[in-house]
Amino acid sequence: MQFHLNGFQAGDPELHPAAPASMLPEAVDVLIVGSGPAGLLLAAQLARFPGIATRVVERRSGRLQLGQADGIACRTVEMFNAFGLAEQLVREAYWVNETAFWRPKADDRQRIERTGRVEDTEHGLSEFPHVIVNQARIQDYLLDSMLKLPRRLEPDYNLELVDVSRDDHSTHPVLAILQRTDSGQTVQIRARYLVGCDGARSKVRTAIGQQLRGDAANHAWGVMDVLAVTDFPDIRLKVAIQSAAAGNMILIPREGGHLVRMYVDLGEVTEENRTTIRETSAEQLIATAQRILQPYTLEVKNVAWFSVYEVGQRLTDRFDDSVDAAGNDREPRIFIAGDACHTHSAKAGQGMNVSMQDAFNLGWKMAAVLEGRSPSSLLASYSQERQPVAQELIGFDKEWSAMIGARPKDPLNPAAGGVDPTELQAYFVQAGKYTAGVATRYRPGTLTGRDTWQELATGLVIGTRLHSAPVIRLADARPLHLGHTATADGRWRLYAFADASAEALSALCHYLEHHPDSPVRRFTAPGADLDSVLDVRAIFQEPHRTLKVQQLPTVLLPRKGRFGLIDYEKAFTADPAADIFESRGIDRQRGALVLVRPDQYVAHVLPLDGYKALEAFLQPVFISH
Amino acid sequence: MQFHLNGFQAGDPELHPAAPASMLPEAVDVLIVGSGPAGLLLAAQLARFPGIATRVVERRSGRLQLGQADGIACRTVEMFNAFGLAEQLVREAYWVNETAFWRPKADDRQRIERTGRVEDTEHGLSEFPHVIVNQARIQDYLLDSMLKLPRRLEPDYNLELVDVSRDDHSTHPVLAILQRTDSGQTVQIRARYLVGCDGARSKVRTAIGQQLRGDAANHAWGVMDVLAVTDFPDIRLKVAIQSAAAGNMILIPREGGHLVRMYVDLGEVTEENRTTIRETSAEQLIATAQRILQPYTLEVKNVAWFSVYEVGQRLTDRFDDSVDAAGNDREPRIFIAGDACHTHSAKAGQGMNVSMQDAFNLGWKMAAVLEGRSPSSLLASYSQERQPVAQELIGFDKEWSAMIGARPKDPLNPAAGGVDPTELQAYFVQAGKYTAGVATRYRPGTLTGRDTWQELATGLVIGTRLHSAPVIRLADARPLHLGHTATADGRWRLYAFADASAEALSALCHYLEHHPDSPVRRFTAPGADLDSVLDVRAIFQEPHRTLKVQQLPTVLLPRKGRFGLIDYEKAFTADPAADIFESRGIDRQRGALVLVRPDQYVAHVLPLDGYKALEAFLQPVFISH
Repeated sequence: MQFHLNGFQAGDPELHPAAPASMLPEAVDVLIVGSGPAGLLLAAQLARFPGIATRVVERRSGRLQLGQADGIACRTVEMFNAFGLAEQLVREAYWVNETAFWRPKADDRQRIERTGRVEDTEHGLSEFPHVIVNQARIQDYLLDSMLKLPRRLEPDYNLELVDVSRDDHSTHPVLAILQRTDSGQTVQIRARYLVGCDGARSKVRTAIGQQLRGDAANHAWGVMDVLAVTDFPDIRLKVAIQSAAAGNMILIPREGGHLVRMYVDLGEVTEENRTTIRETSAEQLIATAQRILQPYTLEVKNVAWFSVYEVGQRLTDRFDDSVDAAGNDREPRIFIAGDACHTHSAKAGQGMNVSMQDAFNLGWKMAAVLEGRSPSSLLASYSQERQPVAQELIGFDKEWSAMIGARPKDPLNPAAGGVDPTELQAYFVQAGKYTAGVATRYRPGTLTGRDTWQELATGLVIGTRLHSAPVIRLADARPLHLGHTATADGRWRLYAFADASAEALSALCHYLEHHPDSPVRRFTAPGADLDSVLDVRAIFQEPHRTLKVQQLPTVLLPRKGRFGLIDYEKAFTADPAADIFESRGIDRQRGALVLVRPDQYVAHVLPLDGYKALEAFLQPVFISH
Repeated sequence: MQFHLNGFQAGDPELHPAAPASMLPEAVDVLIVGSGPAGLLLAAQLARFPGIATRVVERRSGRLQLGQADGIACRTVEMFNAFGLAEQLVREAYWVNETAFWRPKADDRQRIERTGRVEDTEHGLSEFPHVIVNQARIQDYLLDSMLKLPRRLEPDYNLELVDVSRDDHSTHPVLAILQRTDSGQTVQIRARYLVGCDGARSKVRTAIGQQLRGDAANHAWGVMDVLAVTDFPDIRLKVAIQSAAAGNMILIPREGGHLVRMYVDLGEVTEENRTTIRETSAEQLIATAQRILQPYTLEVKNVAWFSVYEVGQRLTDRFDDSVDAAGNDREPRIFIAGDACHTHSAKAGQGMNVSMQDAFNLGWKMAAVLEGRSPSSLLASYSQERQPVAQELIGFDKEWSAMIGARPKDPLNPAAGGVDPTELQAYFVQAGKYTAGVATRYRPGTLTGRDTWQELATGLVIGTRLHSAPVIRLADARPLHLGHTATADGRWRLYAFADASAEALSALCHYLEHHPDSPVRRFTAPGADLDSVLDVRAIFQEPHRTLKVQQLPTVLLPRKGRFGLIDYEKAFTADPAADIFESRGIDRQRGALVLVRPDQYVAHVLPLDGYKALEAFLQPVFISH
């Protein structure tokens, strides 16, 4: 954590100086509709930029208190770490360490027994655990952090979107018509960009002519957060239970050591059963859970929240308005993210995670365009990258839901069909990388290079998120995770892993600082800190006690801020206890240059002397000065 | 982290329900004078108890903003972890990973060179790092946390103590006379107990007839927090520098990556030089630092804070008023803590740490007495335990100051005396356990057992702080640190490490829950949760996947709160990756019962069947019901 660059400031270093405040203005740079996980993650990203005027409107009257999503994949904790929120999340949350599988006993199918117990997340997949915490708390973390960021952003509550339109002749082409839910008063806000994070019934989606397509059928689920006394021994583990006759259930222990979420499968919704299913009471859900858990008892003492919901696997064709009503391409101005684009079951615990990743993908691009670092063409990549991710999610959710919703195979009557619990468990293990959120891989394109030089860093896969690993920071000999040095500040990272002699690394550093074609020189505004657009960091093979600070290339000791202080946090060495060259497959002879986007995805792997390839790759991404 | 026990509560789980608020009252249980580290740590401890009325008075007008102490020993981070504050501290702070030693070059004594570089804290001494952060921030963490605790405690500023007196006929025997520094108005507050955390010039100390005794001579130091540009390569390491002619200096890098603290030795204060020394300017300090650092340059851009202070090694005979003016023993009602009891140099980085440990020692005892769990005789142990610790500190500080203040030995002129830098480095390494704060060892007494059964747990030394180690929590398979499961809630922990067959452990659990002589039964108030006074936890040798939750003794699955929910966080197993039986020398055949006080110190090690010894040890500590 770096601060005091421009002079000592007493007090909380995470409380950033405030940008000028304002009432709800007539025009903003970005208007976010909806304050769920996608909307707030986007807001928390944009609030870091003092020069970007962002507002969030929300039809609810205040913060969410209860219910809804709760699964936080490892990948999301990695992202939260970039926002400075991982410690709080990890401290407060339940950690999903293992998952257990239960099915009917072979000799007494009215009773369930444990058939398996597996590590929930494969060791080494991420340095963070898979955790569970109420969506309301996730939103609290984001809301609390926004109050300390330069824009001091708070949602404007009680404002419901009525209509959105676009007029490209205006500097602020998007016009939003809103209505105050309390007074009925109508409010107009113009925006350069508008993002609909307004959920499955998104009005923004409708306004841009998109619709959710997919399965016609909905599947119903009863879900409840309860405090209960039970003799079921795995009540503090994540559990998938298939009973012989009472149906299936997923147990998710929750934060605080006592609360448990139960998902009870209520089956396909049909014309005939729709009314009955929708009227399912908490008592009925509890009774079903009690039957499923036989021979164990379940005495529910307190229902914190319960809901019956129907969901189908559906998806929009695109996440923006880049095609107009006449079918012609144009630059997108209106976007949708999260449930507004994709709906699916809660069973794989992906919804909130994918929604926030949507927002992280969009947020840095919007900031780069609004701050004049990148051309507006960058924004088209949002839908291009995220729509296929949602497509994959829908596919996975279909398979997983079918597995978990199926009756257990009866060994005495295999012809009756169903899924064998060992199949379910095997599928779960195989899908681990996906459910941890680390399987996302963007395809080659403007922001993702081809795998020409992938062999230089086999463990840092182009198109996937940077898989962090420990290093030692040279100047203060501190062991830390390389990935944790990057915050959600909109900058690209150029991680230069040294070659055997460190000569190619030196040459690269010299080129980056001095050559007129260097992206660092071309894309950094005059007078701005040298690392304000491209943040160059180096990882050396030489031990930290023999490598000399005074011999570092100057691009690794940049002078910054009003005093021209030296930034000492750019140079690292491998940690002998966990060598990053080893664990991430870096070529020890040739080294590697790894480009990482502001949202932590590996954009490219290049040779240290691949200057031309570097220039060619970054050329369309940034604006030259 | 456990919550939701008595029903789901939305929002921040660390925001405790508030106890009834009050204006500055006429009578309180505890009046704390001074809001430095000792006063605030004590306040943060007492604010956790809804039934204890505590107030803090402070003559300053608000929070500290700048300067003063900054060293946080590993032991203090362990303590902060029990207050839920370690993550924030560790995230924000500078980590002292290595310490470097510099001295004059042999062939050119006008220039310094590095002679050594050592690991600052021996590996494995603590699971937390040695860190550096401004005292103002340490106080902020405590103040912020107090606002979430049941008493919602905030200091009353602008109130200066004028006088303290004691009248044992009153229910609130201590009378404090205070004056408002703004209006001059006089205020009286009565208290059951008063604690003077009012610094080296403590009025409370004077009021109880204590005085600081020790060296007559004072040593002067110049200290400054600066933002600077330098080519000194170790500017981000802790460094002890001995120059040939310009004097000595200690560099301490600070939080935020840019700030540096420099301690410049100004020598002994005499009648002759006192005025000159006191008038040393920041410019003079900078000039001295520049001479010491030759041949390296130092360009100071911003002085955040500077001070010249004089300090001698001094100590009071006792930390309470347990001896009256006539020399007769009585129960203490007025206490002093921190700098009010002991003054010494800042060079070993101990001051703030020892002061807060004073307060932690006193806080839980005061809470236990005020809540009726323990007899008031417990309070005499505070001075008995902490005065010898301060005595040790004074002794250590004398040696360390002499070492660090000495001229470097000149190899060409050894007869001129001085300290060889290799001696200094060797002393530093040897003193590592002490400076990390983990060498404190209370002597046998009411709260510290004899070492009769120490061989059952050789790595958990009676009288020292519990050296935490990793375990796996049985119910949720979560890897965590055993010591981190204990918060600063005033409860004692009984850690029962299982014997080979776990039979002695079972018998112990049965005894603790059911036997009429069991301390758990005798000392827990009727209707209170079973673990509200003595928190019994067990660590099994059997792997967590084979040990069955349903076979645990019921004392390890206590029913708690208004719903009688089961607490699943009492049973652990050894972590095969870091076996606590191995690392802490637990007897695998016989197991061990380790009693740990609320301030994390090991009170006793007993055999699992040592029921009578357990009863005898705890008898004087608690009140029977």
